[in-house]
Amino acid sequence: MRVYGDVQSGNCYKVKLLMALLQIEHQWQAVDILAGDTKTPEFLAKNANGKIPLVELDDGRLLAESNAILGYFAADTALMPSDKFQEAKVYEWLFFEQYSHEPFVAVARFIQHYLGMPAARLAEYESLQAGGNKALSIMEQQLTKTHFLVGDSLTIADIALYAYTHVAGQGGFDLNRYPHIQAWCQRIAQQPHYVALG
Amino acid sequence: MRVYGDVQSGNCYKVKLLMALLQIEHQWQAVDILAGDTKTPEFLAKNANGKIPLVELDDGRLLAESNAILGYFAADTALMPSDKFQEAKVYEWLFFEQYSHEPFVAVARFIQHYLGMPAARLAEYESLQAGGNKALSIMEQQLTKTHFLVGDSLTIADIALYAYTHVAGQGGFDLNRYPHIQAWCQRIAQQPHYVALG
Repeated sequence: MRVYGDVQSGNCYKVKLLMALLQIEHQWQAVDILAGDTKTPEFLAKNANGKIPLVELDDGRLLAESNAILGYFAADTALMPSDKFQEAKVYEWLFFEQYSHEPFVAVARFIQHYLGMPAARLAEYESLQAGGNKALSIMEQQLTKTHFLVGDSLTIADIALYAYTHVAGQGGFDLNRYPHIQAWCQRIAQQPHYVALG
Repeated sequence: MRVYGDVQSGNCYKVKLLMALLQIEHQWQAVDILAGDTKTPEFLAKNANGKIPLVELDDGRLLAESNAILGYFAADTALMPSDKFQEAKVYEWLFFEQYSHEPFVAVARFIQHYLGMPAARLAEYESLQAGGNKALSIMEQQLTKTHFLVGDSLTIADIALYAYTHVAGQGGFDLNRYPHIQAWCQRIAQQPHYVALG
C-alpha cells in the first residue's frame, strides 16, 4: 500500500498518525503541493480533485479524503466505537473538522507558517481567527465532559482534530485559552507508537 | 424522533429526502436560521455549533452534521454498500461534498437565492463559481462511468450531492454543461417515495 502525502500537511499527518498507532505497514510517497505535484495529469488520473492524502491499495484501488481514509482503516479496531450511535458521533466530529475547524485553523496556519504571512492575505488571516476560536471552544466544551471527543477512549475523531489543533499556535491561536484541549493533546502524544507531525 | 431543520436548506433537505426514501417516521421542527433560531441558548445547548440539521432521538440523544446523520440512518439499508471499501468511497464523496462542493455551490446559491445578490457579496459570489464548477466537473467525470456516484445503485453519496447540485442553477451554475449530472438528477427524482426540496 502506498500513501501519497506531505509530512507538513495536517490532513496527511492524520493518516500517518493513524497508521503508526495501528502499526499498518505502508510506503510513504512524498508529494509537494507547492511544487504542483498534485496537479500533474498522472496525479489527477488518481484523484480528479488534485488533493492529498491519497491511498493506493496494492490492488490499485484508490481512496481520497483524509477522514474517509481514517474511517476505512479504523473499522473493527479500538479507534472506532462498535456502537452505531457512537460511530455516528465520531463522524459528526469528522465532518465538523472538515467544515468548521480545518477551513479556519489550517488555512490560518498555512498563511502564517507556509506562506510567511504575506500582506495580501493578512485580512483573510485575521478573518479566520473568530471561526478557529469558535471551533476550539466547541472542542474545549466537549473535553470538559469526556477525556476524548467521543467518550473516554481514543477514536479517529481525536486523530482528525488533533492534526491541526496541536499546531494551532502556528496559525495564531493561543492554546493557553483551552486547558482541556492542552491536556487532551498530551494524552494523545502519550499513546503507544505515537509519531510527531513533520 | 425530531428533526430540527429548514426546508429550504440543502443540508436539511438531505435528511428529509433520506427519511422519505427509507420511510422513517419523524417529527419536523421548523428552524429559521435567518431569524436567529440556531443561536438561542436553548438551541446551542443541543448543538454548540449552532447549525441545522440536528436530530433528537426519542431518548434525547442528539446527532448533528447532515452527512453523519445520513450515515447513521443508512447503515444496514440499501443506501449504504455492505462492502467496507465501497462504504469508504461513499464517505469519500460525503467529505468531498462538505469541503469541495457545498462551500462553493451552496454559498453561491445562498447569496443569489436567499440574500438576493447584495452588491457587498458580489465579488465573493463570483469567486465561488470556479470552485463550484470544478466540483461539478468531478461529479460529471464519475457519472460518465457509473450510474450513481458509487457504483450503479443509489447511496447516501448521491443524496448528499444531489441536495445542492440539483438547484445549482440558483447559484449561477449552468447544469446544461453537465449532461451526466442532469440524467443522474432525473434518476434520483424518479426514486420511490422521493420528495422535492422546499
